[in-house]
Amino acid sequence: MTSEHSGHNNARPVILDCDPGHDDALAILLAAASPELKVLGITTVCGNTTLANSTRNALRLVNFANLGIPVARGAAKPLLREPSLDVPRVIHGESGLNGPEIPESPRGAVEESAVEFIVRTLRESDRKITLIPTGPLTNIATVLLAAPDVKDKVEEIVLMGGALLHAGNITSAAEFNIYADPEAAKIVFHSGIPITMVGLDATMKCVLTDDIIAEIRSMGTPVPVLAADLLDFYNSTIKRHYSEAGGSLHDPLAVAVVLDRTLVETRLMYVDVETQSELTRGETVGDVWGITGHHPNVEVCLDADGDRFFELLIGRLRAKWGRK
Amino acid sequence: MTSEHSGHNNARPVILDCDPGHDDALAILLAAASPELKVLGITTVCGNTTLANSTRNALRLVNFANLGIPVARGAAKPLLREPSLDVPRVIHGESGLNGPEIPESPRGAVEESAVEFIVRTLRESDRKITLIPTGPLTNIATVLLAAPDVKDKVEEIVLMGGALLHAGNITSAAEFNIYADPEAAKIVFHSGIPITMVGLDATMKCVLTDDIIAEIRSMGTPVPVLAADLLDFYNSTIKRHYSEAGGSLHDPLAVAVVLDRTLVETRLMYVDVETQSELTRGETVGDVWGITGHHPNVEVCLDADGDRFFELLIGRLRAKWGRK
Amino acid sequence: MTSEHSGHNNARPVILDCDPGHDDALAILLAAASPELKVLGITTVCGNTTLANSTRNALRLVNFANLGIPVARGAAKPLLREPSLDVPRVIHGESGLNGPEIPESPRGAVEESAVEFIVRTLRESDRKITLIPTGPLTNIATVLLAAPDVKDKVEEIVLMGGALLHAGNITSAAEFNIYADPEAAKIVFHSGIPITMVGLDATMKCVLTDDIIAEIRSMGTPVPVLAADLLDFYNSTIKRHYSEAGGSLHDPLAVAVVLDRTLVETRLMYVDVETQSELTRGETVGDVWGITGHHPNVEVCLDADGDRFFELLIGRLRAKWGRK
Amino acid sequence: MTSEHSGHNNARPVILDCDPGHDDALAILLAAASPELKVLGITTVCGNTTLANSTRNALRLVNFANLGIPVARGAAKPLLREPSLDVPRVIHGESGLNGPEIPESPRGAVEESAVEFIVRTLRESDRKITLIPTGPLTNIATVLLAAPDVKDKVEEIVLMGGALLHAGNITSAAEFNIYADPEAAKIVFHSGIPITMVGLDATMKCVLTDDIIAEIRSMGTPVPVLAADLLDFYNSTIKRHYSEAGGSLHDPLAVAVVLDRTLVETRLMYVDVETQSELTRGETVGDVWGITGHHPNVEVCLDADGDRFFELLIGRLRAKWGRK
Repeated sequence: MTSEHSGHNNARPVILDCDPGHDDALAILLAAASPELKVLGITTVCGNTTLANSTRNALRLVNFANLGIPVARGAAKPLLREPSLDVPRVIHGESGLNGPEIPESPRGAVEESAVEFIVRTLRESDRKITLIPTGPLTNIATVLLAAPDVKDKVEEIVLMGGALLHAGNITSAAEFNIYADPEAAKIVFHSGIPITMVGLDATMKCVLTDDIIAEIRSMGTPVPVLAADLLDFYNSTIKRHYSEAGGSLHDPLAVAVVLDRTLVETRLMYVDVETQSELTRGETVGDVWGITGHHPNVEVCLDADGDRFFELLIGRLRAKWGRK
Repeated sequence: MTSEHSGHNNARPVILDCDPGHDDALAILLAAASPELKVLGITTVCGNTTLANSTRNALRLVNFANLGIPVARGAAKPLLREPSLDVPRVIHGESGLNGPEIPESPRGAVEESAVEFIVRTLRESDRKITLIPTGPLTNIATVLLAAPDVKDKVEEIVLMGGALLHAGNITSAAEFNIYADPEAAKIVFHSGIPITMVGLDATMKCVLTDDIIAEIRSMGTPVPVLAADLLDFYNSTIKRHYSEAGGSLHDPLAVAVVLDRTLVETRLMYVDVETQSELTRGETVGDVWGITGHHPNVEVCLDADGDRFFELLIGRLRAKWGRK
Repeated sequence: MTSEHSGHNNARPVILDCDPGHDDALAILLAAASPELKVLGITTVCGNTTLANSTRNALRLVNFANLGIPVARGAAKPLLREPSLDVPRVIHGESGLNGPEIPESPRGAVEESAVEFIVRTLRESDRKITLIPTGPLTNIATVLLAAPDVKDKVEEIVLMGGALLHAGNITSAAEFNIYADPEAAKIVFHSGIPITMVGLDATMKCVLTDDIIAEIRSMGTPVPVLAADLLDFYNSTIKRHYSEAGGSLHDPLAVAVVLDRTLVETRLMYVDVETQSELTRGETVGDVWGITGHHPNVEVCLDADGDRFFELLIGRLRAKWGRK
Repeated sequence: MTSEHSGHNNARPVILDCDPGHDDALAILLAAASPELKVLGITTVCGNTTLANSTRNALRLVNFANLGIPVARGAAKPLLREPSLDVPRVIHGESGLNGPEIPESPRGAVEESAVEFIVRTLRESDRKITLIPTGPLTNIATVLLAAPDVKDKVEEIVLMGGALLHAGNITSAAEFNIYADPEAAKIVFHSGIPITMVGLDATMKCVLTDDIIAEIRSMGTPVPVLAADLLDFYNSTIKRHYSEAGGSLHDPLAVAVVLDRTLVETRLMYVDVETQSELTRGETVGDVWGITGHHPNVEVCLDADGDRFFELLIGRLRAKWGRK
């Protein structure tokens, strides 16, 4: 017997650390629908919404889609800062996952905290595990502080966050996930673990259209319809509040990059995180000229092929949940 | 049977988090010699010396004095900063505990990390436990980040660190322990746990003299003689490098305050920690005028009775290790 | 003919740069009453009150006391910051010099700006001139930026501002004048001009009492009565708002130090000014241990003899304005 | 009689504030060759090279090309920082204008300082004057501090400096001119004067080629040949040190924008300058999303038409100095 979420035998073990959030929800669905990945767990964090909400949303999604993935509750606030909830509330709604009605999950989170879950899972695993954080990096940083020995068990960290040359989205200087907990990002970026930063330079190339949403909806079964409902809400709030052509689908691109590196163009460089100034708080400063003398620590995504990304996303959703 | 370190039945359970260091060594001896305290463990941290050294030193001291206290290895570096080892090396020597020869301990540290040890000990304890950190607050902050649920099991934190009106000792603005890991201090100070800050305003009143050292040495058994040798080294390096009358015995005062609050004059106020500027890094900024509108979070020691402190210290060492 | 403010032939030429303000008013009266000083001009700045108010107040005072000193209007705001007017408004009232009725001056400020006045006066003077700033250092810094050649014509700068070990008064970390324009203070402190910092460590020793005010009032002529009225207002607002024994008379001590250095205990050291952090903004960080390797730049007042200061102040007021 | 630099009757009066520097030299030549402009003066500043060098270079250039423009010596260092001379020395050489031999000027700078020159010129002028700073903004900021009344006489400030989305050139976060004196830039940007920021987003579109240099050289008279020699040196050092296709001609674009706004695409937005952090020091943070609530203060150049810029530059040089 193979459990629902286990994927095939050689599936790459991953942990999703997230704050659903509409695009986190799609990231979870994409990962769960990808046989190359084995999602060992979902850990939640305060980011797009409160920890209570992000945990509830992860649980509701896992239950609705019958994913059978354990959910562990993480940090209720950033390492040193207060949560930044006002802007994401506008985008994701009061619950963090507004739009369709999603039933409560009969199951709760596991007893272990996110940090305990990640540390134990890493220690017990024969294989190295890939971490895919799509929210503020509070949990991951705390894992590295509390149990530095587990670093060797992390294959790599492919995270949604940051911006190199693209303007930020929470301020002009910073992307939200890094802004929300810049000290956590600094710890993760300087950890020595291989890092791929799937930031706004890449994710802003993955712009939703009504056609994409319609195609997902047309798969006709409950999970794609839920996904389409979520995307409709997300896309409409972004169009309304930001006068953009459509919402960019940030978080699923991090999962997609784990599946297919060729979706993005990357460059290895030294990246530091601004923690000293309010004006530029959370800015990811990449050493684009190679002048700092610091060793490169981050594979930065400079660009993405949005069309191929949506093909992958739609293909996986259809293969898993489309009408047969 | 009562184990060596258990104290009497109603002894107050404490954990010493430290970076020995000569004054940490005396703090350990004072705590171990005080029947009112039950030292559940010693956790080590990078501060006065490297983590390897501070752990080795704690182990050697526990072994030499036959204290039977478990030692758990903590953080090898501050949360976000590089270690500041140059100045303490001048004071404490290359090993962190230069001066007398102290044999290696046949026992190593426990398998658990300091964070794991503290979290588990707090969770398993029926009684609330007092934490006495006398080094940078890296371990304590990490405990609070990794397991916020254990806060309720902490009776209080009585820490050596900081300075209110007294000049700092690592810079004019900052005391060493807070300077070394200001972000950790910020996390601890804002944790909501009752905090007593035994800083330089108090500890600089506890100045060593040759008479004090001679009195300890005159007890004649190995442990007091070792203590006297340590104090001789410490006092002479401080007199040589800082042209002061004598070294102040910082860390043992934190233990002494747990034993007898009347040794110090305190005032409850809001205290924040400077983390944004290099010039004032690690400064503990107390709201002395009560104008910030923030709730008081720290009982700040403003003064100490140095004579009574040394009486207590000498009395306890004599009662435990003096010739009967 | 000798003009009213010229003092005797060898009188030391000074310029008062100030933001009256009650204690600035007393500083002006003390300087004008001291034959050892020749007050070449009063320049005004935004500090205790708006520039409009501080200029009006200087003019009204000069007119009322018939001092014949030119007043030049200075900076309306700090170099880089917005004015900090809320706290001083509580102390000095809406006009910056609340309390007694003081008639408007029939004369206005001179046409030159404060910066132009100071630069020209310095350039034209045969003798070096002493600057006595008792407000934010905006004007003085601008002089140094706009005309660095005049540095050589400055005898010394004896300023009211800063705090070494004493707590600040606008925040726990900073004294008001330095806090209000920390960048200006940084420029002045690093100018190479000999600086005496008459800060809170000294001025808080000059505490007003009702007896002092009564003694001034008893001189009976209009100027001392005005002074007493001003001090009554100042003392009562400080007692009411800060529950202190009495208001400290900060600014006149700077003038007094120019008259008699033995009123204060000083120490030469390197002092830098905090400009990077909000928490410690405007803190004057003195290198009390001599560990920074920077050349000493400031003679810091560590203490003052309050009794002798008030003797001097009262004596000068009486000699000039007491009933003969 | 029309003086050499006067331009036609309705020529727009401008002051060039610069730190030559090869591209500053071309900016001076472009301005002097443009009949629409009347260059009232050249003021020098420490930036690409020391103040002594930049003043000498301006004088040599004015003399060599017989421009008859007064040169006034400005600030020897930034408002609050030490000069940043290491990187520009690599590009511009030890003299700040290495390459061709340029004879010393028989004339020196005017007696007035740059600040005095600018203030007096503004005050005396019937018409508003445009300031074109192509170095650090130290002089301009000091003018605004020392004589805020002259703001009304400034038509606009069209400056070379900053970067919006383009990476910086002295660090990844900051363009050199703003980095060198960020406090000055902050003062200028917040002055209320209309500002056009000709930054790297635009100037990096103006890349030198050997053909361009050859075309200038082919004009055959001494000034274009000197210009070509300067550009050869500049282009070769940049190609050697930065492996770029060619050097971008930053400073002349600021002059060109005054001549022809259609060369650039601009957007009006709020721009602030980072002064609190070393990592992002001097970054020009534009409110690209319009979310800060601050009033727009800067017309930011987002793009430039490099071909048309070089056409303009070559055309003007040819018209003025080409063989007839």
